[in-house]
Amino acid sequence: MTDARCEDLGFAKLDLDRERRRGFGEVIFGAGKTEAQLLEIFRAFQKHGRAVLATRCTPQQAEHLRAHGLTDAVHDEVSRTITLRIGVSPDPIGRVAICTGGTADIAVAEEAARTAEFFGASVRRFYDVGIAGIHRLFANIEEIRQTNAIVAVAGMEGALAGVIAGLVDSPVIAVPTSVGYGASFQGVAPLLTMLNSCAEGIAVVNIDNGFGAGYLAAQINRKIEKIGAEKR
Amino acid sequence: MTDARCEDLGFAKLDLDRERRRGFGEVIFGAGKTEAQLLEIFRAFQKHGRAVLATRCTPQQAEHLRAHGLTDAVHDEVSRTITLRIGVSPDPIGRVAICTGGTADIAVAEEAARTAEFFGASVRRFYDVGIAGIHRLFANIEEIRQTNAIVAVAGMEGALAGVIAGLVDSPVIAVPTSVGYGASFQGVAPLLTMLNSCAEGIAVVNIDNGFGAGYLAAQINRKIEKIGAEKR
Amino acid sequence: MTDARCEDLGFAKLDLDRERRRGFGEVIFGAGKTEAQLLEIFRAFQKHGRAVLATRCTPQQAEHLRAHGLTDAVHDEVSRTITLRIGVSPDPIGRVAICTGGTADIAVAEEAARTAEFFGASVRRFYDVGIAGIHRLFANIEEIRQTNAIVAVAGMEGALAGVIAGLVDSPVIAVPTSVGYGASFQGVAPLLTMLNSCAEGIAVVNIDNGFGAGYLAAQINRKIEKIGAEKR
Amino acid sequence: MTDARCEDLGFAKLDLDRERRRGFGEVIFGAGKTEAQLLEIFRAFQKHGRAVLATRCTPQQAEHLRAHGLTDAVHDEVSRTITLRIGVSPDPIGRVAICTGGTADIAVAEEAARTAEFFGASVRRFYDVGIAGIHRLFANIEEIRQTNAIVAVAGMEGALAGVIAGLVDSPVIAVPTSVGYGASFQGVAPLLTMLNSCAEGIAVVNIDNGFGAGYLAAQINRKIEKIGAEKR
Amino acid sequence: MTDARCEDLGFAKLDLDRERRRGFGEVIFGAGKTEAQLLEIFRAFQKHGRAVLATRCTPQQAEHLRAHGLTDAVHDEVSRTITLRIGVSPDPIGRVAICTGGTADIAVAEEAARTAEFFGASVRRFYDVGIAGIHRLFANIEEIRQTNAIVAVAGMEGALAGVIAGLVDSPVIAVPTSVGYGASFQGVAPLLTMLNSCAEGIAVVNIDNGFGAGYLAAQINRKIEKIGAEKR
Amino acid sequence: MTDARCEDLGFAKLDLDRERRRGFGEVIFGAGKTEAQLLEIFRAFQKHGRAVLATRCTPQQAEHLRAHGLTDAVHDEVSRTITLRIGVSPDPIGRVAICTGGTADIAVAEEAARTAEFFGASVRRFYDVGIAGIHRLFANIEEIRQTNAIVAVAGMEGALAGVIAGLVDSPVIAVPTSVGYGASFQGVAPLLTMLNSCAEGIAVVNIDNGFGAGYLAAQINRKIEKIGAEKR
Amino acid sequence: MTDARCEDLGFAKLDLDRERRRGFGEVIFGAGKTEAQLLEIFRAFQKHGRAVLATRCTPQQAEHLRAHGLTDAVHDEVSRTITLRIGVSPDPIGRVAICTGGTADIAVAEEAARTAEFFGASVRRFYDVGIAGIHRLFANIEEIRQTNAIVAVAGMEGALAGVIAGLVDSPVIAVPTSVGYGASFQGVAPLLTMLNSCAEGIAVVNIDNGFGAGYLAAQINRKIEKIGAEKR
Amino acid sequence: MTDARCEDLGFAKLDLDRERRRGFGEVIFGAGKTEAQLLEIFRAFQKHGRAVLATRCTPQQAEHLRAHGLTDAVHDEVSRTITLRIGVSPDPIGRVAICTGGTADIAVAEEAARTAEFFGASVRRFYDVGIAGIHRLFANIEEIRQTNAIVAVAGMEGALAGVIAGLVDSPVIAVPTSVGYGASFQGVAPLLTMLNSCAEGIAVVNIDNGFGAGYLAAQINRKIEKIGAEKR
Repeated sequence: MTDARCEDLGFAKLDLDRERRRGFGEVIFGAGKTEAQLLEIFRAFQKHGRAVLATRCTPQQAEHLRAHGLTDAVHDEVSRTITLRIGVSPDPIGRVAICTGGTADIAVAEEAARTAEFFGASVRRFYDVGIAGIHRLFANIEEIRQTNAIVAVAGMEGALAGVIAGLVDSPVIAVPTSVGYGASFQGVAPLLTMLNSCAEGIAVVNIDNGFGAGYLAAQINRKIEKIGAEKR
Repeated sequence: MTDARCEDLGFAKLDLDRERRRGFGEVIFGAGKTEAQLLEIFRAFQKHGRAVLATRCTPQQAEHLRAHGLTDAVHDEVSRTITLRIGVSPDPIGRVAICTGGTADIAVAEEAARTAEFFGASVRRFYDVGIAGIHRLFANIEEIRQTNAIVAVAGMEGALAGVIAGLVDSPVIAVPTSVGYGASFQGVAPLLTMLNSCAEGIAVVNIDNGFGAGYLAAQINRKIEKIGAEKR
Repeated sequence: MTDARCEDLGFAKLDLDRERRRGFGEVIFGAGKTEAQLLEIFRAFQKHGRAVLATRCTPQQAEHLRAHGLTDAVHDEVSRTITLRIGVSPDPIGRVAICTGGTADIAVAEEAARTAEFFGASVRRFYDVGIAGIHRLFANIEEIRQTNAIVAVAGMEGALAGVIAGLVDSPVIAVPTSVGYGASFQGVAPLLTMLNSCAEGIAVVNIDNGFGAGYLAAQINRKIEKIGAEKR
Repeated sequence: MTDARCEDLGFAKLDLDRERRRGFGEVIFGAGKTEAQLLEIFRAFQKHGRAVLATRCTPQQAEHLRAHGLTDAVHDEVSRTITLRIGVSPDPIGRVAICTGGTADIAVAEEAARTAEFFGASVRRFYDVGIAGIHRLFANIEEIRQTNAIVAVAGMEGALAGVIAGLVDSPVIAVPTSVGYGASFQGVAPLLTMLNSCAEGIAVVNIDNGFGAGYLAAQINRKIEKIGAEKR
Repeated sequence: MTDARCEDLGFAKLDLDRERRRGFGEVIFGAGKTEAQLLEIFRAFQKHGRAVLATRCTPQQAEHLRAHGLTDAVHDEVSRTITLRIGVSPDPIGRVAICTGGTADIAVAEEAARTAEFFGASVRRFYDVGIAGIHRLFANIEEIRQTNAIVAVAGMEGALAGVIAGLVDSPVIAVPTSVGYGASFQGVAPLLTMLNSCAEGIAVVNIDNGFGAGYLAAQINRKIEKIGAEKR
Repeated sequence: MTDARCEDLGFAKLDLDRERRRGFGEVIFGAGKTEAQLLEIFRAFQKHGRAVLATRCTPQQAEHLRAHGLTDAVHDEVSRTITLRIGVSPDPIGRVAICTGGTADIAVAEEAARTAEFFGASVRRFYDVGIAGIHRLFANIEEIRQTNAIVAVAGMEGALAGVIAGLVDSPVIAVPTSVGYGASFQGVAPLLTMLNSCAEGIAVVNIDNGFGAGYLAAQINRKIEKIGAEKR
Repeated sequence: MTDARCEDLGFAKLDLDRERRRGFGEVIFGAGKTEAQLLEIFRAFQKHGRAVLATRCTPQQAEHLRAHGLTDAVHDEVSRTITLRIGVSPDPIGRVAICTGGTADIAVAEEAARTAEFFGASVRRFYDVGIAGIHRLFANIEEIRQTNAIVAVAGMEGALAGVIAGLVDSPVIAVPTSVGYGASFQGVAPLLTMLNSCAEGIAVVNIDNGFGAGYLAAQINRKIEKIGAEKR
Repeated sequence: MTDARCEDLGFAKLDLDRERRRGFGEVIFGAGKTEAQLLEIFRAFQKHGRAVLATRCTPQQAEHLRAHGLTDAVHDEVSRTITLRIGVSPDPIGRVAICTGGTADIAVAEEAARTAEFFGASVRRFYDVGIAGIHRLFANIEEIRQTNAIVAVAGMEGALAGVIAGLVDSPVIAVPTSVGYGASFQGVAPLLTMLNSCAEGIAVVNIDNGFGAGYLAAQINRKIEKIGAEKR
């Protein structure tokens, strides 16, 4: 297959057309890829002058990249992301809020935050504001309201998304996490909570899918800031 | 079987010992019983001078009882209960709060309320105080706090129980309801929410089990008001 | 409770503060409400000069409203909505696409469309463009791309949302439907498909939740058209 | 956020208001927290003069606390709790029974017992009294009856809670455990058993949630002993 | 197919060899068969001089049989069985106990009882001896022990089978029923309870499968009474 | 959309290109379509000179078609199909076997048979050959072996497909049916049985999906008979 | 508790009354017990002169017993059992068949076999006779028929039990195993297959519960051989 | 058992009759077999002059075979297969396409490819052509169409099979993989997607069952190429 829109590595066909088509470039899912495969992918993108974001990466994968010449690849342990930027990044735009119910949800929240930042959004974090002590949320709610999109990350019962959505006029992107035990069923409980919320304006993504939430938030944020602007 | 603790009707063995053993007498689950069976059971209890509470009853069952001489049997359509009282009921004691997330949860809430009242508790209702408009809950929270036990009835996402529990020092008995659709899975979603709540002090009962919640609330309420008093 | 932000009908506490807080007013979930309850709710909103949208309504409920003086209440049988508008509606703004995989998904899609229109969005419908004949989608894709938000409604395998998301730069709100049989498990199959999509930018709502999708689309659409504009 | 009711550590916002609001102070869920995070949390509570209970802690976490100056932190391996008491604890009050079906349920039962004791309850343990040899339960039932609240911990079929509840007049807090294999589905089987019990007066908590059961038992116990007393 | 072991009716191939091979003849599952099909099957068995048992039959099916000459076909409404006997039945042998947890389980229990009786067992019924009032079971336990096999029929929590098994030395055939609501999930809860029982000697059959339990009980009963005797 | 490959009816976009692309033309899923919609679809296909197969149709839908001029539309009640043929059908080719475990599976089997016949296959039926009387299968196995593809339709335990597959060299298309009760979970049990078969050469389709199995059988049958022939 | 029927070790209450009540003595579930606990239990039984069977034991547990003086404790690695016999065992009686579908099911089958042997049954093994090569079963079926009870152990699709039951007149005890992958869901697939079998006379036990099946087989075997004999 | 169709190794009964009966010889499932067992099996087949394919093998198993004289045994790490060929293999026939949605699905795809090749099919691989960049699929679709059977391997949402099936006239064998996280539930999500596909002509196999798909593809491929040819 010879196609300018695609680089065929055999084990992977890189989608070079995605940025034109979708606004944002391709992202690499690091889990399950060998260190050699990840390196080959990073080099291919670098060759084409594209910035890269890889998620669910191990320290070993990051180390392998840096040891083989990709010294600019930045690994963040908490979010498990590797980013390789090309040139100077533009100033972040708009505003996205990332909230968590508890401390254990922070890894997923950071994946969302890093993704949104990679795609150009300005991000503000509000961690451990779950409903067991709801005054912690109310103390921050005005600041949370002043954003284009809100990511609510919560495990266990996952009620955070619904409570926030009932108080704001921005879309709330709900991320259930696998934090919990027993009848949380690795995130099924908060997933169902979020899908059934009586508060409107909640968009749900897969369990632990911080990346997907960050992408969606950045997409909406950009639409409001950029595309909305262009229209006028 | 000849046993003073039990009246054997063939299709049912009435537990006449329950009040001595458990504090409250036996309750009849009306669903699936024929009108004739229910009548026979009511007559047996009446013969022994016991008040009766039957749950999940149809108007037809109630009509059949009244048409066959049980004119004092009171049927409440919303809660689907039939009660037959013997003599003058004592004054209600203590205080139990019954809250619902929405209007559609009221049938289950009334089953809880009627049950708690049948077993002697004073009940206060707070309906439609769900989290989509959380100021409706906060407007009532002080009154809700002034109770020995709180029943929180909610379908869909079921977050009400956790939010209340985070604000009070009384046990919250959480009743998931089958209100909802799609991924509520006939009440599984709020059941899981309630089991996974990060707020402590939540006791969960079966989906739509208003009776069980009312019983538990009355039991705790009586322990606090009566048994607690006796100890001193 | 005396609170200007809430009208207490006993069985319901109407949230009069919602428009201020959330941008859009309260919506009524018609299912499970008696005709009398729905009438009382409509009259209360009318008294406060608020437009009303009710979803999951029966023809009987609609007829009851009209028979009791709410002659302006408009019932749409396909979407099962009742709308009561106050005064002249403003011109619709922006653009939202509503797509379905098949014919049987149209009822849910219309709930989304009517909701988005109620909240001010201009809506364009693309029905029966599922993947079994993917040229039907490609024939419309350019028009679908020219929108602020896309609602993708699909039952059975639910692959439509992912295929669309891979081709556009707007957020795709995915609505799984209970259309199907056997291992679709009343919509669980497309729900899982949508949650696991490898294409980014997909926001999932509950099974058959056309209302939620329409709300979210209208919310994003308004943010882009209005709020985005205000910022500049 | 500057708020006397909350200490903001960035990764966690400690709820200093909880004791006032809920009767008992905040408890730390140790699982998933780094040793450094747990240490910081303990120090913050110590600074505010608050006793702390942490659950699901590892020996490593306990060792880290002690190695960094928290020499009074007591780690219990069976229950996996760490407690830090401030000053002299008051005498335990009332009486709570903790029962298990088998030997393998003891770890969860001890979490319940330690929690109830931390919150001031006098606890009596009845271990391995499951229904396979029901005379072991009957030999202890009179003593079990003489308590304000009963915690029944059982895995596999989980029938213990129902059998006890049928014999006593105190609330039974049922804790399903993940003990078992095959169709116990990590505790789902006893969870369902307990939710469906035909004996009334059963309050269910999450699978393996000994902490939640102990909290609830202590809460009810205190209400009966203290609050009940105050009322008169 | 011409085969003495099989009568081919096109829509069904009657297994005429089963009695030789399995000890008991073929049984007809009435549900889903048209009245005409059932009639044709009964006539074919009658032609071959075989007694027939059909389960899950409607009154309409029974009426159709009798209206078309099968006047000896006996329909029992509670158990929904139709039996057609050929000649004089032999005296029942051995002893099988059939127990239920509650009144609503009787329909399934009667299917078991009628089946066991059809296959020659002497049956003794013990209904409504569930664990909520466990003295009702203990009052009958000696009589239950004096049997070759015990069928325990229970819905909701389904603990009856385990409690009985812990007290006897005969095999207990456990039949979960779909009696219950909410988290009983149409019989899944008692099914899991029975599969996970800590008491040994429990054989589980499908939900509501009274027939299968009665068959198994009759099979074991006959082995003990007849085959066991022959061996000596 | 003006596209020769598609007829746009608004509520449906008929795929006129399917036969060229896929070998067989489009098929209509009758369930959930109004009588008027079905009529419009049949007329459109008739206008284009295409034969039509519709599945899951009601007698009312069939009657409506015939009453509005489509007198050649043939409705089969057992399989719930409607077929409209154009001109003389070619002789059936090859050989497909359709087997059922029991009588209640025949409706699904007939949907498969009618579909395979509509698409040109010669079909041979083997009904009620389930494993409870396995000699019924062995009596027919040689004839079953002499086919290009075998459809095995079975509910309850669904073991038929595996037993057949272990005896033949043709692909076995396994169709689980919702026939059964209790733990068959509307066809989940046989679906899992078929997916997990230790015999190789089993292709599984959705529960009750007789159409899909018939289609696949006809497709394989035609490939062997026609396409295979063309290659030489 | 001082009770001759029970030895109270604190962490366990040994049921010394079980043999009188149930025919067979108590069995120890080794999983989850510490080496010290197991040793203490073995010593207690030895002190009372009782033979012991422990299941799900590790080599380490066995080694610990032997290293602390229980040199007669016999550990079998395949079945993971430890047995300690007291005096000379009586001759095995009757006949039990243990069959497996495949090689991987042998561990569970051996647990059944060892248990049945411990409780006095004569056992005959038939391994790897699954339905993928059904002639392997037919070559052994006559020998399998000559038994009082048959244990059928199978994973994956689990069809073995039904095929055997259709060919014999003895009860078949079906043991689903967790052997398999994907949609076998750790044994759920064969469990459902066995519960839904159309062949009568199947008794199902928990997934991987070889012990339970062996116990049940020994119990039925003994009833036929001994109790049946006594009656005459 | 002495039977020319079976070699009895005690722990396994090798099916020597399978090639005659089924067209292809027996295949060994390596998982769960000891190295010694696998060696014994390979030697037995070698003794009978049969080629062997073993799946799900570890490098240790392969090493053990080679170390004990089976030096011709070929281990492929990606597909985890071991093959032992006897003599010269015939030229591959026909054409089978193996496609994957992503890179992580390749291990399963290679199991399918190696199996199809072992059974004589010519295989063409198309990896990483999932729907997130659907132009990658379209660039290869003509080549994919020129095959007798297509294996579509996909995890996460699993939409690949349906999209391909909508474009070709060959049967598509769909293999869901356990690739993914959260709500993919170890492959349940793509399994359901594939079972519910609206595109006809899809045959589904178990999660991660590359072997089954390769077998089925080879079987259909051979039928078309060989058996089809013989018929003429």
